[in-house]
Amino acid sequence: MLLCDIGNFSAKIYDNGKISHMSIEALNSYLPTQNIYYINVNSKFSPKSSKFIDIASCFEFDTAYKGLGIDRIAGCYTIENGVVVDAGSAITVDAMLENRHLGGFILPGISSYLKAYEEISPALKIPFNSQIDPNAIPQKTADAVTYGVVMPIILSIKDIAKNQKIFFTGGDGSFFAKFFDNAIFDKNLVFRGMLKAIKQKDLK
Amino acid sequence: MLLCDIGNFSAKIYDNGKISHMSIEALNSYLPTQNIYYINVNSKFSPKSSKFIDIASCFEFDTAYKGLGIDRIAGCYTIENGVVVDAGSAITVDAMLENRHLGGFILPGISSYLKAYEEISPALKIPFNSQIDPNAIPQKTADAVTYGVVMPIILSIKDIAKNQKIFFTGGDGSFFAKFFDNAIFDKNLVFRGMLKAIKQKDLK
Repeated sequence: MLLCDIGNFSAKIYDNGKISHMSIEALNSYLPTQNIYYINVNSKFSPKSSKFIDIASCFEFDTAYKGLGIDRIAGCYTIENGVVVDAGSAITVDAMLENRHLGGFILPGISSYLKAYEEISPALKIPFNSQIDPNAIPQKTADAVTYGVVMPIILSIKDIAKNQKIFFTGGDGSFFAKFFDNAIFDKNLVFRGMLKAIKQKDLK
Repeated sequence: MLLCDIGNFSAKIYDNGKISHMSIEALNSYLPTQNIYYINVNSKFSPKSSKFIDIASCFEFDTAYKGLGIDRIAGCYTIENGVVVDAGSAITVDAMLENRHLGGFILPGISSYLKAYEEISPALKIPFNSQIDPNAIPQKTADAVTYGVVMPIILSIKDIAKNQKIFFTGGDGSFFAKFFDNAIFDKNLVFRGMLKAIKQKDLK
């Protein structure tokens, strides 16, 4: 079974545990030979084949949140209790309690942060230092920027998670997971949610 | 005495307690009739008059930080103990202990954050809600974005400040100050530092 998670900048395709990436443009001209069950947050996605099947309506999700992205719903869909962090082009943070969604917030993704610094001043155009120690006060501009990206993200996730489990997914998920004792990294979290929704609806 | 603090996007002029703003372009063609003592972090600043006097060398500042911006030095220059937050186009956070600078970090400013969200997705183009309650988990996208801007900034300042006094300055300084019990807002903090440096060097 083929699944597709269409994000803000590209699409991820899941083929029985194997993940590949595709641009939105490539996806728009793609003519699959079997059904592709997808979720989509990108207005530029415009499939040319009836084999693309939108499964958004398959999710039965308990939340009071207005306008929650279908990717966030899918990421939370298999989580009973804890916090879900999807760290990609944006970083979404959602709290779950007894299969109910309590709310959540959105942070810019790492590359988005770095671009923001660069636009403030050429002096702040800094390559990201993934070896940063968030417990040391920075003593140079490069560290001051990396700390300014990483530390606020860590602290705001800690603040909402308290001692609960934190489920990380997305391209930068494993990077952030290492700063937390109670972290679980699952690169397939969104696809796992999609599979659950499909199974519930008994799609073929 | 005229002072001028030349930032990333514009300049602030201090005339005996009165503050006015000027674009870098306007400043570059400005021909003052009296001396203007300035600090500058903007490579586009190119004065046409010898009445512009760079006072960067007047600061004697104890720090191990490499490449600390002169605006951050000036902001810290009158602070013996505590944390200095200059919330403008960037938000700089610096820790002082017994007149010694311990280090600091840099966050994007509010408008920079909002632009970053907008570039991730049109769905995240959100007007800033200055009435946000940072203690409530957001229940809609507009709040999820505002919370994502404000909460990480608050938490990272709290984390470095612990129970020390926090001195806020800059365009968004008074907005952030209200989230802290131990906050002091001083819109003239940088100019106060400049005046101290000038006095020490006995410039006329």
